[in-house]
Amino acid sequence: MVKKKQSARLTKQHKKSHGEVGIFGIKAKEHDSLVCKVSKKIITSLQKSYPNLVFRYRTSISKKEINESLQKIDSELGQTLYLPSSSIKPDGGIIEVRDDQGQWRIILVSEAKFQGKDIDNIRQGKLVGKHNDQDLMAAGNAIERSHKNISEIANYMLNETFFPYVLFLEGSNFLTQDVIITRPDGRVITLQYNSGTLNRLDRLTAANYGLPLNKNLCANRFVKIQDRVIMLQAASIYTQGAGMRWNEQEMSTVMLDIANTSIKMLAKDLFNQLIAQSL
Amino acid sequence: MVKKKQSARLTKQHKKSHGEVGIFGIKAKEHDSLVCKVSKKIITSLQKSYPNLVFRYRTSISKKEINESLQKIDSELGQTLYLPSSSIKPDGGIIEVRDDQGQWRIILVSEAKFQGKDIDNIRQGKLVGKHNDQDLMAAGNAIERSHKNISEIANYMLNETFFPYVLFLEGSNFLTQDVIITRPDGRVITLQYNSGTLNRLDRLTAANYGLPLNKNLCANRFVKIQDRVIMLQAASIYTQGAGMRWNEQEMSTVMLDIANTSIKMLAKDLFNQLIAQSL
Repeated sequence: MVKKKQSARLTKQHKKSHGEVGIFGIKAKEHDSLVCKVSKKIITSLQKSYPNLVFRYRTSISKKEINESLQKIDSELGQTLYLPSSSIKPDGGIIEVRDDQGQWRIILVSEAKFQGKDIDNIRQGKLVGKHNDQDLMAAGNAIERSHKNISEIANYMLNETFFPYVLFLEGSNFLTQDVIITRPDGRVITLQYNSGTLNRLDRLTAANYGLPLNKNLCANRFVKIQDRVIMLQAASIYTQGAGMRWNEQEMSTVMLDIANTSIKMLAKDLFNQLIAQSL
Repeated sequence: MVKKKQSARLTKQHKKSHGEVGIFGIKAKEHDSLVCKVSKKIITSLQKSYPNLVFRYRTSISKKEINESLQKIDSELGQTLYLPSSSIKPDGGIIEVRDDQGQWRIILVSEAKFQGKDIDNIRQGKLVGKHNDQDLMAAGNAIERSHKNISEIANYMLNETFFPYVLFLEGSNFLTQDVIITRPDGRVITLQYNSGTLNRLDRLTAANYGLPLNKNLCANRFVKIQDRVIMLQAASIYTQGAGMRWNEQEMSTVMLDIANTSIKMLAKDLFNQLIAQSL
């Protein structure tokens, strides 16, 4: 009986949430727009820096393209596709450059995730939780879904020696230092970065092999293990560790840095165009 | 104003859901128990097949251990840990064997996910959706979270040449063929496996590079790309493509197959114990 009641409640709630929006919430949507806006502006900056190169922006990459890229590596890979229209849509989109052979090569993929609105809640004096008596909301796990797009793009780029994937994080679930917030009634609350209730950074660090956050990890690492060499594709994860919002300038600096690294890694395949430029 | 209303609704719904249970629902929980039960029984079978080997079962592996394993490969890896107690808990647990050096080596990691209860809903004559007028419920994306544990275990096992990760899927979101269900009122409904409303298999196939489902992919592939060789760690994804439930016997067969492959891949490091057994 208990189970039936719970099941009914969950269904009701599912109807209310309309899927994704219900998980990351409103602030996430605003935030996604910023990363998309910055990404589009990056193209202009790149065009100025490399007048002879041709860039393009796109919002998605299809599973079909990912499969084709995998098939080129090994004909057994990239064989499954259940929905012909399946595609990956990183919220900041994808920037590509055209190489000397006329092939489009990815140089930047960006996503931005907001999770944890405790700072805003406290500033507004809003109590949360089941009985509206808590200062902090226990963090969810939706951020774990980020790994899917990272894996997809990593697969698409298995034949490259760099991985220009940037994940921007903000919100109270991604702090790297304690943050002190004062409520309207004057009560002061410390958000402890290493609180299990709040921090969800450990749910993401599989994507960068525990390498440092806020660092350009675009160039792949090759590590020796016994008689083998293994290639590691690490996402570059940037977090607003003090609870601030990302602004356009900061995002832009990070994204240009990654895109420039990609272009450098591709230099051999852009050589003719780069040389023409310097003449 | 619209945004405020929506935000309030989302918070209310978040309070109701208590996180994870709200996403996968009741059936998922029942299901998880089965994979855990089967996994524990596998130990007994393995002990009979390999009387000289020592096996152990555990429910989790800590991020600290994963970091230590990464550090052994490259001292720059595995440096971040925000919550000292962070751990990975695949719902079927982890089986390990003790090698000739006394080191525990993973030979099986299993997870089971249920998503999509359309078949049960139709059988019960239950309409779904916002206005309770649809036969089918649009599928969610929670399954994408599966990639996190896969990446974590893959990182832990970077120094191995096999990846014994099994993901069992069931529910109407993972069909590989059309399924016909009759409602109590006699109306017949066809669940089309390639319907975008239902199918979520494409959200998982990044974890196996688009290799076939329902196949033991435990032994890693090494593929040549230009002047490099790349190691691929593919999860073995098994789905009940006709909408049936997994039963103990089927799960057990798959899991033993994977565990046996792991033991074979480790044969060099289990040699002394295996030889003693055959004498």
